Amino acid sequence: MRDFRHDLSGLALNTATLGHNMEGAGRGWSPERTIEACARRGIGGIVFWRREIEGRAAAIGAHARAAGVRVVGLCRAPFLVGPLAFRSEGEVRDDFYRAIDQTAELGGDILTIVVGGVQPGTKGVGESLGLVGQYVADAANRAASVGVRLALEPLHPVYGGDRSCLVTTRDALDLCERIGADNLGIAIDVYHVWWDTDLPRQLARAGGRILGFHLCDWLAHTADVLLDRGMMGDGVADLVAIRAAVEQAGYQGYCEVEIFSANNWWKRDPAEVLDVMIERFRTVC
Amino acid sequence: MRDFRHDLSGLALNTATLGHNMEGAGRGWSPERTIEACARRGIGGIVFWRREIEGRAAAIGAHARAAGVRVVGLCRAPFLVGPLAFRSEGEVRDDFYRAIDQTAELGGDILTIVVGGVQPGTKGVGESLGLVGQYVADAANRAASVGVRLALEPLHPVYGGDRSCLVTTRDALDLCERIGADNLGIAIDVYHVWWDTDLPRQLARAGGRILGFHLCDWLAHTADVLLDRGMMGDGVADLVAIRAAVEQAGYQGYCEVEIFSANNWWKRDPAEVLDVMIERFRTVC
Repeated sequence: MRDFRHDLSGLALNTATLGHNMEGAGRGWSPERTIEACARRGIGGIVFWRREIEGRAAAIGAHARAAGVRVVGLCRAPFLVGPLAFRSEGEVRDDFYRAIDQTAELGGDILTIVVGGVQPGTKGVGESLGLVGQYVADAANRAASVGVRLALEPLHPVYGGDRSCLVTTRDALDLCERIGADNLGIAIDVYHVWWDTDLPRQLARAGGRILGFHLCDWLAHTADVLLDRGMMGDGVADLVAIRAAVEQAGYQGYCEVEIFSANNWWKRDPAEVLDVMIERFRTVC
Repeated sequence: MRDFRHDLSGLALNTATLGHNMEGAGRGWSPERTIEACARRGIGGIVFWRREIEGRAAAIGAHARAAGVRVVGLCRAPFLVGPLAFRSEGEVRDDFYRAIDQTAELGGDILTIVVGGVQPGTKGVGESLGLVGQYVADAANRAASVGVRLALEPLHPVYGGDRSCLVTTRDALDLCERIGADNLGIAIDVYHVWWDTDLPRQLARAGGRILGFHLCDWLAHTADVLLDRGMMGDGVADLVAIRAAVEQAGYQGYCEVEIFSANNWWKRDPAEVLDVMIERFRTVC
């Protein structure tokens, strides 16, 4: 298991952690300011959201490279199915392609996919997962042509209805195997998988398919499943055990901190959040 | 698969469905009135909560029997572990025994167990599940001596932190096998397991261990994971497929409707709720 106590090169910031997405609140740093704050602290990588880089992807990517911060990837492809997806298949596909192209413009390696919930008019996750498979198989070709890898992220089962019919590492790997594209893998986020006693077995099966590893924590008393994630160490997830299993499977990529926290971390000074994040990464992950 | 279109003898009401637990709101029927309303409609069984029968278990049980309504069981044993459990092991055990005795006094067959969340000071679910196993192994003996069966209910993973470190059917069956008591089994609630593509495989493995089957629905946009359950047919769970798998495993017991719904069903006339419940049971389950 890698030792990060004195080395932050394996740490990446997902900009959501600084509350970028409190739209209209007038808070949050610009991409450039965030890049510089990461560079100054020795944070190795950064992951942006599409809304932040819209129309400026190439310039922001160049800024990061010049600062010595690796653009790890982009969040995220559109919902492919479910009640929150675009209405038409054409719109879904076009926006999926657009996200792939933006990832490439940014100079990022990985586009994360949150698949969307249960397709209206159907029951259970089966049919929806089938549709997801079709979209992803198609997009994997497009992504390969521009050097982008796709990471299917299973979300916590609480999002099963509206945001992700893909809720287990097992199902994500099944989908990868069914599609069989070389540039397709999974992202493991401790928030979504911490409860799953089948996780070690699945990770062992995943091997090189693990393209991303996300850190935060699950608070014992979660007030809001969307916007009340905990800082590493403040919750009940066994972060050390999960990282050990992920690395045992061969993963040597970034540990990406992604914390949505409307009433705690997003209310703090971003500089403080970064400093706490670093301290926790060194000591409890 | 059983045909319930013209037969309600397999339907049971969990009294939570009528909003009994809006404590202090001055609403909800008495146990006797609820029993009579069930009897009048041909509903075969009823499941009470401890707070409703406190000090009157034997009389309420007799009332139900006289009315021709079977007391299926009692909700529930105390949290055994986690932040919401009693402080001392002695208190947990005493209250567990008390719940077992109340089930027997009521003339009920099954006591449902919701195990509690992650034990403070530990990470992940492993250690907590180990503690649960010790409590349950001990209580199973006590329960056997008074003719009560214990049903471990895996809850949805969203409750993993505070209410139930037991979040999958797989883990519940593992626990049953490890303990090996004849009067120990599991309760399957569609709300908690609808997302799990491993469910059919686990149910096939469960065989005679399925002691309860609970119905409601998972709303695609769930506003509150505790108190916003849907009526059967209003959500995304594949109720027919789950019941088919449960019965395929050999289950021939009651289908127990349990809906916590602070802002919808609990605001309605209990008679209306019963009538809608029956209609949905006949048509979409």
